[in-house]
Amino acid sequence: TAILPRGRAAMATPCWSGIFSLNGNGEMTGSHWIEETGTCELAVTITNTHAVGVARDAAIKWAARNLAFGDGMDWGLPVAAETFDGHLNDINGFHVTEEHVFAAIESARGGPIDEGSVGGGTGMSCYGFKGGSGSASRAAGGYTLGAFVQANFGRPRELTVAGVPVGRELEGGFDYFSGLGSIIVVLASDAPLLPHQLKRRARRAGLGIVRSGAIAHHGSGDIFLALSTANAAALGTAAGVATAEFLPDESLDFLFEAAIQAVDEAILNALFANQDMTGRNGHVIRALPRERVAALLAAAGRLAG
Amino acid sequence: TAILPRGRAAMATPCWSGIFSLNGNGEMTGSHWIEETGTCELAVTITNTHAVGVARDAAIKWAARNLAFGDGMDWGLPVAAETFDGHLNDINGFHVTEEHVFAAIESARGGPIDEGSVGGGTGMSCYGFKGGSGSASRAAGGYTLGAFVQANFGRPRELTVAGVPVGRELEGGFDYFSGLGSIIVVLASDAPLLPHQLKRRARRAGLGIVRSGAIAHHGSGDIFLALSTANAAALGTAAGVATAEFLPDESLDFLFEAAIQAVDEAILNALFANQDMTGRNGHVIRALPRERVAALLAAAGRLAG
Amino acid sequence: TAILPRGRAAMATPCWSGIFSLNGNGEMTGSHWIEETGTCELAVTITNTHAVGVARDAAIKWAARNLAFGDGMDWGLPVAAETFDGHLNDINGFHVTEEHVFAAIESARGGPIDEGSVGGGTGMSCYGFKGGSGSASRAAGGYTLGAFVQANFGRPRELTVAGVPVGRELEGGFDYFSGLGSIIVVLASDAPLLPHQLKRRARRAGLGIVRSGAIAHHGSGDIFLALSTANAAALGTAAGVATAEFLPDESLDFLFEAAIQAVDEAILNALFANQDMTGRNGHVIRALPRERVAALLAAAGRLAG
Amino acid sequence: TAILPRGRAAMATPCWSGIFSLNGNGEMTGSHWIEETGTCELAVTITNTHAVGVARDAAIKWAARNLAFGDGMDWGLPVAAETFDGHLNDINGFHVTEEHVFAAIESARGGPIDEGSVGGGTGMSCYGFKGGSGSASRAAGGYTLGAFVQANFGRPRELTVAGVPVGRELEGGFDYFSGLGSIIVVLASDAPLLPHQLKRRARRAGLGIVRSGAIAHHGSGDIFLALSTANAAALGTAAGVATAEFLPDESLDFLFEAAIQAVDEAILNALFANQDMTGRNGHVIRALPRERVAALLAAAGRLAG
Repeated sequence: TAILPRGRAAMATPCWSGIFSLNGNGEMTGSHWIEETGTCELAVTITNTHAVGVARDAAIKWAARNLAFGDGMDWGLPVAAETFDGHLNDINGFHVTEEHVFAAIESARGGPIDEGSVGGGTGMSCYGFKGGSGSASRAAGGYTLGAFVQANFGRPRELTVAGVPVGRELEGGFDYFSGLGSIIVVLASDAPLLPHQLKRRARRAGLGIVRSGAIAHHGSGDIFLALSTANAAALGTAAGVATAEFLPDESLDFLFEAAIQAVDEAILNALFANQDMTGRNGHVIRALPRERVAALLAAAGRLAG
Repeated sequence: TAILPRGRAAMATPCWSGIFSLNGNGEMTGSHWIEETGTCELAVTITNTHAVGVARDAAIKWAARNLAFGDGMDWGLPVAAETFDGHLNDINGFHVTEEHVFAAIESARGGPIDEGSVGGGTGMSCYGFKGGSGSASRAAGGYTLGAFVQANFGRPRELTVAGVPVGRELEGGFDYFSGLGSIIVVLASDAPLLPHQLKRRARRAGLGIVRSGAIAHHGSGDIFLALSTANAAALGTAAGVATAEFLPDESLDFLFEAAIQAVDEAILNALFANQDMTGRNGHVIRALPRERVAALLAAAGRLAG
Repeated sequence: TAILPRGRAAMATPCWSGIFSLNGNGEMTGSHWIEETGTCELAVTITNTHAVGVARDAAIKWAARNLAFGDGMDWGLPVAAETFDGHLNDINGFHVTEEHVFAAIESARGGPIDEGSVGGGTGMSCYGFKGGSGSASRAAGGYTLGAFVQANFGRPRELTVAGVPVGRELEGGFDYFSGLGSIIVVLASDAPLLPHQLKRRARRAGLGIVRSGAIAHHGSGDIFLALSTANAAALGTAAGVATAEFLPDESLDFLFEAAIQAVDEAILNALFANQDMTGRNGHVIRALPRERVAALLAAAGRLAG
Repeated sequence: TAILPRGRAAMATPCWSGIFSLNGNGEMTGSHWIEETGTCELAVTITNTHAVGVARDAAIKWAARNLAFGDGMDWGLPVAAETFDGHLNDINGFHVTEEHVFAAIESARGGPIDEGSVGGGTGMSCYGFKGGSGSASRAAGGYTLGAFVQANFGRPRELTVAGVPVGRELEGGFDYFSGLGSIIVVLASDAPLLPHQLKRRARRAGLGIVRSGAIAHHGSGDIFLALSTANAAALGTAAGVATAEFLPDESLDFLFEAAIQAVDEAILNALFANQDMTGRNGHVIRALPRERVAALLAAAGRLAG
């Protein structure tokens, strides 16, 4: 899966960004650069654990071929992140190639994205059921706020939906991983935020995943990226004094709350937009039993009609 | 409120510790020292925002008088933390004195502690109702795990108990603060953990506060301290090679889960062990309407009998 | 010693800021708030290790009395920092009072400041000789850049001046502390920098102290604060969209270099603007033997005339 | 260039480690994992900026083929780091392949290593002259302390050798990069240190690079890794209570000083063990004029005989 800022030459117009690692049993390249300058450049790619390198280098190679890399002296430090899909996928076959990455970058576009077992999310499981890619958004304060997750974490008994601990009642969840897994979250918005404010927002992704029951197991790589597409001109200023817009700290709560809600919803979407999958060696991960979950929510009075 | 490691000369036997700031609109002195060396020394004090300084200096003064401060060349960098009680308390009267701190240190002891509107928790509110001091513990893996909170955060509509969003149904909560407030968490255990593992555990306190509905408002100082009372001899080694015990990372999940549960429970205890309070200028904060909450939990099927 | 932004109501016009702890055997209150929001408010005070608390609380009390603290609901999280002067000063006498802090705040003004054994720097030693307060500045890029240090670190043999290891040749340095000591650095400028850029600049203070021979001993609290007085209007914006100016990252090197140079010079000024001091129990710290240092620099070809 | 702990199955016996980014205009994969658990696993590889990905994935692939990766469910988060060699090397040709990485891993061995324009250091420049790989070591306290650098930073006028600002006097340095460049430092030792202590040691690498004149330019990726080969059994403990050895904090100064000295020396070795190089497009980087440097040191009285 690749997310590229829509319609922009990545080198020319990077995004301000911030990161947070709730539990660092994972990888997100580009983190030192983001921590230093708040700048996220080139395509953001999310893949499996053993393909982070090819995704990262290919994002640079694509830029070197398609953007203005002047005289061999430009470089990039792009974000490539991962979750582990070795149970379903032959991860040690190293099947992801740079062509997959180029195709993902070139097919990136705005608008709704596919959810469930697609792209980097293909081989993932979440709370013991089939996980993968999920997204959700909020419109608030005149801004659009989106969350994307590659959800691959949690044990069956932990799953909580709208406050109801449904996981304890469900059958068929796979608990082989004993808490292994990971979740990568990308929070994007057109709200104007400075790098240190985006770090604050990235931290709220961790609060979002708790709502579905997460405890951030030792074995989980829970790493979060928050981006703002505002201030492109400010980041493009190379000399003199630049000017940036930002929302005052006192007004950020609505963005924090929207981030938490959207992350929670995106995880549920990754679970609900899925079906059973049989992977390598006949390994099976079942889809979340949606009707059983609905019945449990209804019994708890948490379904509207 | 003061927490002193029971029966120990603080200078001689400090604790390994780790900290995490989920939202740093608050103060916890000693943080640079803990981040550098993982060492927490002298009394841990928690008070109101404008009394952190007196609590911090008094903890040193008490140690200088009562412990072996050799020839004026010993020093301390103790933890003093705070939450803001200006709505109920005349905080700008600066009423906390070093005598209060000495008394707190000298009365520190093991065993159950008072909860609700006591000590540093006296003037606090939480989710719009009367908050304050709370505690909870777990016995797991042969270890004892305790959580202490000074709970002073959240808006009424956010309160969630056992997954049930009761806050939306309750009346009488005070929303003046618009998300101001804070929570200090101290996690203590006799489980042997190294400093970097205690940082990991401190981070889980943030997951615990989410369970009751927290979003970590901009206006909140949510700062967490995790301590281990193990390895006292290792920390007391001044030369040669020291030896420490620790639990392997792969076995920490039970401590993470216990921390999350205990923090959630400690917050609820701070709310349930309380009553209405009238403070300065006739300001009133009501106790959590316990019976209404119980009825809402029963309606959601979350009460056992 | 107190540094107050000149002619401003502190609550109304805080500064953007960043911090870095090179070695955290020290205290700087306000750090969680600065790390979270990049905001430094109220008076910055620097004193001895056991008076940080009174300095911090008194800065709030002064503000509560002199600024617009509305209805008891305003609060502050000011910076108070320290270095240890127990060899010369009766530090466990706790002689610093809030009146000293009030006086320091009220006498704060722009322009050159006293250097050497004044204010918080009174009881300090540096590379075994009499240390204390030092300052230096640079004019570059149309901006003014100032450094203030409270210098209390280093062993005699480490002292290096303009690259010449003079410390090995000097006599009379006091090595009792075996590497104990600390240095607090405040970097201030009117150059417009965002909070994450000020963190970057704060880190360069550590490079500055290396130039005089520092190795950041375990026993040293080397904590640095960088401030920008620009963007006061941006920080004063409480709603809507604020606008801030900043220098592009690509143009920051001159500020990094100026910070390194000014910190090095400020430390030397703290040493050169000093004389012998006899403190408690007859303890003596000698002034740097200036003429001997000059002779050593001349011999190395590092004196111009 | 690859550094593999000698004679160990990497998965079975990882090293405790710590990292520090002085200026994060660079990449070091594995950083989230090291920050979380203090664990460095598999081969450490250092290459050019656009080959980090292939180096990182190939280190995993090599381990999957050569170590016990059980049933496809093991994974690695190895360290791959970089500096930019685009001036001399056709970096956008992406010439590094996994075969190069396998060969580097398999040829890793103990003992002295080649210095100068070898391995990952081939295309590097430092202070305007030919840079690359450098190493130095100290024996202290019964332990062996080694530093490895891939040195590719600094402007000609900044070069300082033994405190003498020789760079201002040298001719032929190439200043095209205007402060671009990077340095990766690996500090390795058999001294027993805990993860938080290794973070402290990693920070001292930054003090070491200052001695040769570094200011950590905006354009520089200055990222440091410190490893301890001690405590292999402790890291290999998967259940129960593990036991680790460590040196008390109070005794670490000799390790800090040794790190600073060794990093300074390793950089100079990378410069001195070099010759002119002509790279792509006829770009030339000259070797440091050794005799001129020696003459300048002699004139400053810094050469012994």
